[in-house]
Amino acid sequence: MRPYDIILKKRNGGKLSYDEIKFMVDGYVKGEVPDYQMAAFLMAIYFRHMDEEERAWLTEIMANSGDKIDLSSIPGVKIDKHSTGGVGDKTTLVVGPLVASLGIPVAKMSGRALGHTGGTIDKLESIPGFRTALSEEEFFRNVKEIGIAIVGQTANLVPADKKIYALRDATATVDEVSLIAASIMSKKLAGGADGYVLDVKVGSGAFMKTLEEARELATAMVGIAKAHGKKAVAVLTNMNVPLGRMVGNSLEVLEAIETLKGRGPQDFTELCLNLAAWMCHLAGLGSFEECIKLVEGSLKSGSGLEKFRQMVERQGGDPRVVDKPEDILPIAREVVEFRAWASGYVRAIDTEKIGLASNYLGAGRRTKEDTIDHSVGIEILKKVGDQVQEGEPLALLYVSSKSDVTQATKLLKESYTISETPPEPEPLILDVVR
Amino acid sequence: MRPYDIILKKRNGGKLSYDEIKFMVDGYVKGEVPDYQMAAFLMAIYFRHMDEEERAWLTEIMANSGDKIDLSSIPGVKIDKHSTGGVGDKTTLVVGPLVASLGIPVAKMSGRALGHTGGTIDKLESIPGFRTALSEEEFFRNVKEIGIAIVGQTANLVPADKKIYALRDATATVDEVSLIAASIMSKKLAGGADGYVLDVKVGSGAFMKTLEEARELATAMVGIAKAHGKKAVAVLTNMNVPLGRMVGNSLEVLEAIETLKGRGPQDFTELCLNLAAWMCHLAGLGSFEECIKLVEGSLKSGSGLEKFRQMVERQGGDPRVVDKPEDILPIAREVVEFRAWASGYVRAIDTEKIGLASNYLGAGRRTKEDTIDHSVGIEILKKVGDQVQEGEPLALLYVSSKSDVTQATKLLKESYTISETPPEPEPLILDVVR
Repeated sequence: MRPYDIILKKRNGGKLSYDEIKFMVDGYVKGEVPDYQMAAFLMAIYFRHMDEEERAWLTEIMANSGDKIDLSSIPGVKIDKHSTGGVGDKTTLVVGPLVASLGIPVAKMSGRALGHTGGTIDKLESIPGFRTALSEEEFFRNVKEIGIAIVGQTANLVPADKKIYALRDATATVDEVSLIAASIMSKKLAGGADGYVLDVKVGSGAFMKTLEEARELATAMVGIAKAHGKKAVAVLTNMNVPLGRMVGNSLEVLEAIETLKGRGPQDFTELCLNLAAWMCHLAGLGSFEECIKLVEGSLKSGSGLEKFRQMVERQGGDPRVVDKPEDILPIAREVVEFRAWASGYVRAIDTEKIGLASNYLGAGRRTKEDTIDHSVGIEILKKVGDQVQEGEPLALLYVSSKSDVTQATKLLKESYTISETPPEPEPLILDVVR
Repeated sequence: MRPYDIILKKRNGGKLSYDEIKFMVDGYVKGEVPDYQMAAFLMAIYFRHMDEEERAWLTEIMANSGDKIDLSSIPGVKIDKHSTGGVGDKTTLVVGPLVASLGIPVAKMSGRALGHTGGTIDKLESIPGFRTALSEEEFFRNVKEIGIAIVGQTANLVPADKKIYALRDATATVDEVSLIAASIMSKKLAGGADGYVLDVKVGSGAFMKTLEEARELATAMVGIAKAHGKKAVAVLTNMNVPLGRMVGNSLEVLEAIETLKGRGPQDFTELCLNLAAWMCHLAGLGSFEECIKLVEGSLKSGSGLEKFRQMVERQGGDPRVVDKPEDILPIAREVVEFRAWASGYVRAIDTEKIGLASNYLGAGRRTKEDTIDHSVGIEILKKVGDQVQEGEPLALLYVSSKSDVTQATKLLKESYTISETPPEPEPLILDVVR
């Protein structure tokens, strides 16, 4: 087998075999297939794509390239959740405890901020003392004893994805559906759960800008999961507007706690209940409709909130954050108002720019080595469809001394469209792919 | 400017600017653009192609990457000739002297064998003493004094092509028309002539297997030439059968000399007259029809043969080769007959396999460092359309002790198709693109 022939076969639209894909991926990880042949191969895949079987093979081969988590010692059906990344997306902080409070084990590995989107691990680290790097032993013990643990990804999880993603990032081959799906699902497979609820974001704040693209990705991911005998549901959700009102690490933890107390924003609460219900459904707790009732009950009774408190305490965080989040979380004291320059309706929000504006305040990283300022962020006061008066605040910027307020304000200004007529309302849940 | 953005632009079907192409090519030659980004870029070009302007820019930028020959000190219109490579293609050895004998300066740089095709420089080196590496001074002096010099390419001619071609060869991005055209024409532009006659081979022995592909390449090359203010004609010629009867270095020189004596095979003679006439036409000697008469005259009068003798003598070769080529040229004494296994008509010859068979006898190189055996080769006795009797020789193999006669014979057997009915005759000149 030669890399040249495999590149040529894919370039000419041929279907690759398991062995051919394995030869390329394993060879690349070992350094036997050079960067330039892998780059040509990825660009050929960009144009020729992969079919369902090739995708499933690629995912499996990548998942097998490093450590895999074996959750079989934990009793019960383990359902993982994944979001393709949005702005203000703190669902794991609410969904995890809600689901765990219903007896479904949540053994979750989460990611850090990427580009304009935030990351669950960065958010959790806003809580003073909270440890996201647990030993495998502690991780398993927590799940077995309290039903939940959320940790960062281990260093050797899917090294093939790390190496291939870095190359894709340098060669304009990121946005191909098979490669995206394999990148995500290889990490899910290596994570060892029995099923997955995939939150595929669609819109100006998401990587997938159109419903069509998102549906294609969702179908690919669900297909890969099923090819490996896993349960899967993909929920396509609106990301044309930030989720909830808070963007930024401490601010999002605050909002998640408020939501677990039943006082969260309507859109965010609805999404959390929906995703949690799908997880319960996949875990076998009943029909989706029955599961919606179960998770609503868990929210109302406060048992989700209690589970969150337990998790914080077990992972070294200050449990008082649950009762007095404003006092315990580091939240910037300096607040700058961003005001409407005209009267009318918020017609649209370019949501990616909200995420980038939050980064300019210090909530994200420019390089891998950058540190995050957990205290800064943006509170969205007016969302799409809201009526505004000229001079009325649209958003509040929580800023620190290192924040670039000028750039952030410029991006907010570009982000908001105010018009005389209100926009058509858009649903939160756009589609479900099973 | 970043390589990433340029790759992305081409990948998305955008048109590149001169500066963007220059940034990639110059950066790659300097080592500032890494192999993997160039590989992705080339694969994107494979799928998205380049328009006429982009091709012309790419060619110019590549031509400027190394030394360029300035022929302006040589009086007259300098017309270069190029063949895309075939089997038994020794036209330069005949066309060069014919054209030079009509007063058109021939300052020619030629190549060596590539793949299954031979190279003019290797053929000329069959002549004992013949030097193909002249100093620039000697090269110019010969052209000025006797009107002709044929030399190998200088080391620093179009280094961008050398580096990019090696990468294309490893990444399955060789066969894209813009890249092929730019590779050829960059060397032509750097060679400094005022116009080009391009012999684009079509068929089983050529790189272009179909007339459509060949026409596309011809159009691209002529377009590039014209974009740089050069005259150009592309002649599409049949390569479904070896040209003439001889394949192999000494054997081809022998056939070229016979042709200059007016005793060459009909097809090869016709092609030489045609290409020479186009060169004369581009040089301004008259209409194509008038030029055909001129070159026919030069052949009949023996002035082409005299010019060949002068060239050989000037470049250190033994001029007696003209009078007694069989005695002077190293031609293998051992001859193996390859016989027809059935009676009927030669319906087809897979001509690439004839070239490869000749290589197995020792006429070509497997690696760049390999040496060539000038004495070996194949004499084609029966060509497409010829009637044969079972047991009658189809070809003669001129072999040396290092020849792999078994492999060569196997390839010859695969190459010939004998059938009961004769094939439709095919024209030699398929089309002319101007």
